[in-house]
Order: sequence, then C-alpha cells, then structure tokens
Amino acid sequence: MLGVFLIVVDAERARSLGERVLGRYGASAAEARLQADLLLEADLRGRRSHGLQRLSVLTARLECGVLVAGAVPRLEWKAGSFLAVDGGDGFGVVAVRAAIEQLVLRAADTGVAAAGIRRGGHIGMLAPHLEEICGKGLVGFIMTTSEALVHPTGGRTALLGTNPIGICVPADPEPFVLDMSTAAISAGEILARGQSGEALPPGRCVDSHGNPTTDPELARAGAISPFGGSKGYGLSLAVELLVALMSATALGTDVVGTLDTDSRATKGDLVIVLDPDAVGQVATVAAISSYLDTIRAAPRAAGIDRILIPGDRMRAERARSLRDGIRYPSALWDSLLALDDNRSAGADD
Amino acid sequence: MLGVFLIVVDAERARSLGERVLGRYGASAAEARLQADLLLEADLRGRRSHGLQRLSVLTARLECGVLVAGAVPRLEWKAGSFLAVDGGDGFGVVAVRAAIEQLVLRAADTGVAAAGIRRGGHIGMLAPHLEEICGKGLVGFIMTTSEALVHPTGGRTALLGTNPIGICVPADPEPFVLDMSTAAISAGEILARGQSGEALPPGRCVDSHGNPTTDPELARAGAISPFGGSKGYGLSLAVELLVALMSATALGTDVVGTLDTDSRATKGDLVIVLDPDAVGQVATVAAISSYLDTIRAAPRAAGIDRILIPGDRMRAERARSLRDGIRYPSALWDSLLALDDNRSAGADD
Repeated sequence: MLGVFLIVVDAERARSLGERVLGRYGASAAEARLQADLLLEADLRGRRSHGLQRLSVLTARLECGVLVAGAVPRLEWKAGSFLAVDGGDGFGVVAVRAAIEQLVLRAADTGVAAAGIRRGGHIGMLAPHLEEICGKGLVGFIMTTSEALVHPTGGRTALLGTNPIGICVPADPEPFVLDMSTAAISAGEILARGQSGEALPPGRCVDSHGNPTTDPELARAGAISPFGGSKGYGLSLAVELLVALMSATALGTDVVGTLDTDSRATKGDLVIVLDPDAVGQVATVAAISSYLDTIRAAPRAAGIDRILIPGDRMRAERARSLRDGIRYPSALWDSLLALDDNRSAGADD
Repeated sequence: MLGVFLIVVDAERARSLGERVLGRYGASAAEARLQADLLLEADLRGRRSHGLQRLSVLTARLECGVLVAGAVPRLEWKAGSFLAVDGGDGFGVVAVRAAIEQLVLRAADTGVAAAGIRRGGHIGMLAPHLEEICGKGLVGFIMTTSEALVHPTGGRTALLGTNPIGICVPADPEPFVLDMSTAAISAGEILARGQSGEALPPGRCVDSHGNPTTDPELARAGAISPFGGSKGYGLSLAVELLVALMSATALGTDVVGTLDTDSRATKGDLVIVLDPDAVGQVATVAAISSYLDTIRAAPRAAGIDRILIPGDRMRAERARSLRDGIRYPSALWDSLLALDDNRSAGADD
C-alpha cells in the first residue's frame, strides 16, 4: 500500500468546519448543524465514506440547485399510521429526522407507524437516525435506496443499489444497532484500493463479463456483488422494491442524485417504528440486554479476541475518536479546508 | 451419494394423507386442512424440510399434549395498529393466518399494522403466508425465531435460531416472495448429507472448536454458521431480538418446541403488513413488475442460464410437482403411511 499522510483533527474542529462550509454554500444554521453532525458521526465511527468527505458532493449539489437549501419537508398522514414525506429536494437528514420525530409520537399511540420519504436526498449513515428512535425506547427499521452499483446473482451489470438496512432494538446500557449495506463492498473502498494499488478481497466484485475479480479497475468496469450470495441479493432486491413502492420513488438505474452533482435525488427511504410497550411486557428489554451479554461472553473460536454485537465496534471507535481525534488523510483534510477558503474568497467577489 | 428410492405421489393424495393423519391425532377438520395444505405447499416447492416429513413431530407433539388441538388463538389489539396474539399452544399456522386476516383489514385502514405472536407453534414455510398478504395487494414482512442452531460470528456454540425472514411485495403477474433462513445451511440438509455420506459445502458450519468444517458429524457437534458472514449474523440477531421483544417470547437457547416433541413452543413471530395504497401512487406496482422483468432479462455472467427473482424457482418447482407429482424418498413415504395405519389400528384398541 502506498503511504497516506494522516492528520489528526479534534472532533469539534471537524464539526465546525463542516457546519461553516455548508453555511457558506447556503444551508441554514439548522440544516448546517444537522448535516455536519451526521457527517461527523460517520467520521467518529470510522465510516469515512459517509463522513465530511461528502461535503464536496453536497456543496456542488447546492451550487447546482439540485439540493435546495431551506426546503421544508411536507409531512402528511395518509392513513392513521402511515406518513408520506416529501423532502422538497432538501437535505435528506432534515427529512428523515422530521419523519422520525412524528413516527415516534405516533407509534407510542398506535404501536407501529411507518413513513415513506421521497425527494429527501441522501440520509447518510443510518446508525445516528436509529439511535434517535432507540433513545425513545422504540424499535426502528430504516431502508434506503441508492444508485445502481450491484449486480443481481448470475448477472454482470449493476441494477440494484447498495440498499442499506438499519435495525435498532433498545437494550441496556447501549442499544443494538445494525447498520449495514447489502453490497459486499462499498464503492468508496474500491476507489481507495484502486488509488493505493491494493487488491480487493475475493468475492466482492465481478468484471464486465461477470467473472469474479479482485482488480479494482476491472471491478469499476463491472459491478459490486451483493453480500452473502443469492440470499443477500434477495434482501437487496427486497429493499429496492419495498422502498420504491412505499415512497413512490425510482427503481434500479433510475435512482440518481446521491453520488452525482447535477440530478435531483430520486431515491427513497422507508422508516418503520414499533413500540415495545404495546406488547405489554416491557421486562423483555432486560432479557435482551442479558442475552446480548451472553453472546459477548460466549466460547470463542481459536484466534478470536472478542465476540461483537452490531454497534459495539462503532461505539468503541467513536469513543477513541472523541478522545484522540479523528485521523483524516491530509489530502482530504486539505480539500475540506480549500472548500472553506474558496467559498470564503468567492463570497467577496 | 448412496442411492435413495423415490416414490412419486400425486399432490392430492399427499394432501389427504396429511389431513387424515392430523385428524387421527385429534386435529379439527379446519386445523388438519390448514396444516396439511401448508406442509404440502412446502413439498410442492421442493422444500422437503418443511413438508409432510414434519408430521412425525407434529403428531408426537399432539400426543404429548404440548401441541393443543382445538386451541383458539386469542387476538387483542393492544394499540390501533398493533395486535398481540396468544396462540394457546395450538397450531402455528392457525395463529399466523388468524393474525394475517386481521392485519390485512387493519392495514387497509391505518396504512401499516403489526402482530406479535406467542404460544403459536411452528409456522412452517413462510412463502404461503406471504402470498396470503400479497394476494390482497399488500406488502408483508414475517420474521420468526427457532431453536438455537447458529453461532455468532467469532463464536463456536449455537446461540441463535435459524431465524428466517420473509418479505413479499405485490407484482404482476406474480408477487416478489423472499423466504430465506438467516443460517448458511439447514439442519435437515446436514442430517441428509450425513446419512448419504456427502460432505457439506464449505463455509456453512463450524466444529466444536469453531473451525470451519465440511464434515456433517463434526458440524452436528459444532454449530451452523450464519449466512453472509458478519452481516448475516447481524441480521439473524436482529430477527432474534425483534421477534422476542415484540411477541414477548424467548431468546437464544430458551427457544424450544419446534424440533422436540415434549416442550411447549416458546418461539415467536412478528408480522408486519403495509398498504401501498396509503402512499397514493399505486402505479408503482406496474413499475416494479417491469423492473423485475428487466432484471430477469439482464446480461448474464458466463455459464448462467437464467437470472432469477426470489420466488421464481419455487413457482416453477410447484408447477412441475402439480403436473408430475411429488417425489418422496420411499422410506419417508412409508413412515407417513405407517403414521396413518398405526393410529388407525390404535384407535380400535
């Protein structure tokens, strides 16, 4: 691997840079804070593909007018427990948090509530949204579509998004938080390995003929494989269909507007919130916490240090980043500083 | 592989044998019909582990009194969109169909409705239940827990069920129906390969030390792996927690009563139904059907004959079985006939 110079940045400094840049490009104070917080959370947890590096796409989208600063999401209860959300081409995080705020209130009344979100933009890492739901003692599901990068099993062209699934369940002291893409590898990882000259792990991508490849360049001309073979393909496709149907958004190659800088977002999100109190047996949260601890302490295979529960690694990484700072490749950090400076200079023209 | 003698049985003959056996062991006419139909559907679709071979466990459970013939499920709307179901230790299929009947009606009103089912028994193959939901034009999710057979990633003991996930989405002419276990292989397949002397496919199981094994005997002393590595583990665990919490049922090794013949069932089910009409854009079903056809017709990798949509293979197998009959290992078929005869003789005692 070629050397990458890293710079260590204090979390608050990274957050305020993100907030300032978004503000310079027209985001309101509230939008800039929500979006910068979300990007920072990804960097704190080591999920850099969803971190501040997305500022360059977000600001280009703001400049192009396909991401609309100041858009106010329109929320409409189409039925007693179903909320239709039109994000008005604004920030995805604004739309999804507005939806969650309503769903949490409604689910406490009806036991379950769901929202379909369209014209809402990229909602970034799912875990922080899920934690909003779990923080209220509720169960959450989030599914979201994205640009077609993944081939169906047996195919060789990209027809499915990386379609992440997020699920949270309350537990003590920390909730269970699953936040996973249904793709075998991220596009960002392929790009990074291509730049550093590293091969891909086997079984993650196919070339343009549909043959498995570990060459990042051949993979970029081919497609990403779904995780977990035909079962993962089935889940990825289920997310694609469920989200499109329940949010009236696009399918397959018609999904645009999260990676590019000149198309309005046609992806969608589906959020489902369930209230365990409706079951009338709240003691189960204690049983869940105890069960998770049993798994953590279970007999391990040779060479395994720890058995993890989804969310454990993220939380540990977050604590480390808050204590020691976030490590950014210096080229990335410089580009973020430039985004701040350029716009600052441009504003004086 | 050792030879297995097969006998070809007409679907109606298999169904009526199942119905008659269940009746002899005390099931009401309605219970026997529903349960026999469900077992038959699995055999028709080539999922023999969920087919008539389960009659031996069901009848033993009836004899032992841990499965209660004639139990009437108690359904209670705990909140506007949340239904708590107590199956009263009756047939799982009776409880889940009663729940679905209510959920479909409620979701048409509230947009989304969910049910947690306890004391409901094994609900068998999920696809036929999902088709009940899709047949009404609705979207369905079913998750269900089962005996701990699967190890957590990094572990070597069974702490998770095979925890299947079912998702259906309406489409023309046939719905999308995903019905998959979150385990890498079924316990039935391990048993069958052990009997026939075949090795397991790699990566499906670990031995008692946590090392991957393809030896069925070593696998039975170890545990089944989750499908798809740590992501599949995360999903399997999510199903375990969601179901237990929303149905007030057991977790991990406390789940019993679907494989054994002397314990009341402590597993649970979670069913969620969503109404696409609530979105107000029903034309999307046509878009979904067209998208699925695009995937079926997409460029294929070398050596691939067809790209399949979940549900396609099952439907083809079902049509073939209805036309040509169902192939049962003759030893299995003989044991089913004996179950019928023995009880018939016993009834005269």
